Amino acid sequence: MADKVLIYSRFPKTMMARFAERFELLDTGGKPAREVFSADELGGIRAMLTAGGSPLGAEAMDLFPKLGAIVCYGTGYDGVDLKAAAARKIAVGHSPGANAASVADIAMTLMLATTRRILVADQYVRSGDWAASKQSPMMRPQAGMPGRRIGVYGMGEIGRKIAARCAAFESEVGYFSRSKYELPYQYFSSLEALADWCSVLMIAVRAGAETQGVVNADILKRLGADGYVVNISRGSVIDEKALVAALSDKTIAGAGLDVFEKEPHAPDALTALPNVVFAPHIGGHTLESHVAMQTCVLANLTAFFEGKALPHAVKSA
Amino acid sequence: MADKVLIYSRFPKTMMARFAERFELLDTGGKPAREVFSADELGGIRAMLTAGGSPLGAEAMDLFPKLGAIVCYGTGYDGVDLKAAAARKIAVGHSPGANAASVADIAMTLMLATTRRILVADQYVRSGDWAASKQSPMMRPQAGMPGRRIGVYGMGEIGRKIAARCAAFESEVGYFSRSKYELPYQYFSSLEALADWCSVLMIAVRAGAETQGVVNADILKRLGADGYVVNISRGSVIDEKALVAALSDKTIAGAGLDVFEKEPHAPDALTALPNVVFAPHIGGHTLESHVAMQTCVLANLTAFFEGKALPHAVKSA
Repeated sequence: MADKVLIYSRFPKTMMARFAERFELLDTGGKPAREVFSADELGGIRAMLTAGGSPLGAEAMDLFPKLGAIVCYGTGYDGVDLKAAAARKIAVGHSPGANAASVADIAMTLMLATTRRILVADQYVRSGDWAASKQSPMMRPQAGMPGRRIGVYGMGEIGRKIAARCAAFESEVGYFSRSKYELPYQYFSSLEALADWCSVLMIAVRAGAETQGVVNADILKRLGADGYVVNISRGSVIDEKALVAALSDKTIAGAGLDVFEKEPHAPDALTALPNVVFAPHIGGHTLESHVAMQTCVLANLTAFFEGKALPHAVKSA
Repeated sequence: MADKVLIYSRFPKTMMARFAERFELLDTGGKPAREVFSADELGGIRAMLTAGGSPLGAEAMDLFPKLGAIVCYGTGYDGVDLKAAAARKIAVGHSPGANAASVADIAMTLMLATTRRILVADQYVRSGDWAASKQSPMMRPQAGMPGRRIGVYGMGEIGRKIAARCAAFESEVGYFSRSKYELPYQYFSSLEALADWCSVLMIAVRAGAETQGVVNADILKRLGADGYVVNISRGSVIDEKALVAALSDKTIAGAGLDVFEKEPHAPDALTALPNVVFAPHIGGHTLESHVAMQTCVLANLTAFFEGKALPHAVKSA
């Protein structure tokens, strides 16, 4: 009989196909597990697959007395209460780096689309206004990439890939992270100093309690009227109300957002803004990224059921 | 008395400000010169500023018997009949390389926006469909940049900058151009071979009579159903009807277009397509690109009126 794996979050069936070949999947479809499966069924669950951002605290863990492994699909695990897991001797795994290029690329896409105002450009052509020689909304030229100061917040695998790409665009790259690394980019010892220096802030930090709302009104003000913020980390890192205010009153020029405080909800006051480019948390959503993430998940689940340590364990767990 | 310069094409006044400080500008606003100025005024014109894509043939040149210099704003000069200019001993100048980074960056912007389907993504969030958990139009993951085969057609300054940027995205880069260069990219000896190999064709070739419609139905078919074409060169390089057909019947997956056959007109059949990202010929339209192009224009005009050779002359002119 195949080992059972509870699918705790809502995932498309196609993304689960490789797991279904090896395991018996109990799919909640993202609903509370108790609504979908009997206490008896849940009682036997030893491993679950979750989206790292889905809240998964002590109370939820206690629904599964035999739970031994929480495997996150993707690199994030900010929804998982690591202390509660450790206290229950539950191993926590993820897919480190598997989606780094894909996420870095959505950051670049959002930055370029926002700074070159591609939504406005597309609409000007598509509407026929360009053909009709109507006043161009693109008249005032914007700063381009060469010489632009790009600040990367967080220097993990995603941050490094963003930095390498920006350098190829002939931009200056600076960064702030807890540690200073041997990298050819200028290091700043605080987020404030980085924001003072850069005109584009790329948020690539691993989210957690200590990064909650750190990109606040003060940081946004430091970016200035020609400043942009791009977030591909987690919505929790930005104070979303402060962001709406800064975008509305032109404290900053624009934003590119793949993540939001309460996904899938993005506030109306935010989605009404013309100077933002939105994406529905698709950073890691490319073919090769999914294959790589699934390979990590399979390795984690297989090792767990063989009684071995998770090969891709969350380090601090 | 300041030297006179005829402004032959339609340019925003702000882009002419640096020239107005040094020269007396006779601005046609893009209208036929004879409608705006008297034959007497035109008879004295020795230098003109034009957009390289504006048609400027023998007949037009003969309106200005004293014309000695045609200075193009930007790198392109495909509208200028170089033989006719040479026969009249008219020097032709341009701004080589001044806008290369800016144009390469719009190519990257269009490629990323198209392949990551950013218009669809933005609309899904902005419309509230994501918040309402409506079926996502982004469900099927697309191939990302790592390992993607990108074919660059033309290896001038813009093509090289596109190639360098793509390499930073961990893509494979190949190219076709008249000459093979000492570059770390795979060379293909024909456009057909490049199209067979790549999934994204970046058109960065200098346009002219010999490139007219060379990206035709056959080339598009070779790109295949997962293929994309991005054009930042001139609209004339693509057979636009064949492109509309290939995009409509899914012979290729999508396109990113900054240039069109008959600007500012883009055919309705093209602008109605959802799998294209459009821009209104803004490739060179960044602050630093304009400054660099203006510096070339000023150097060309100043040298001409001092009786010297143009420092930024069109080579084949």
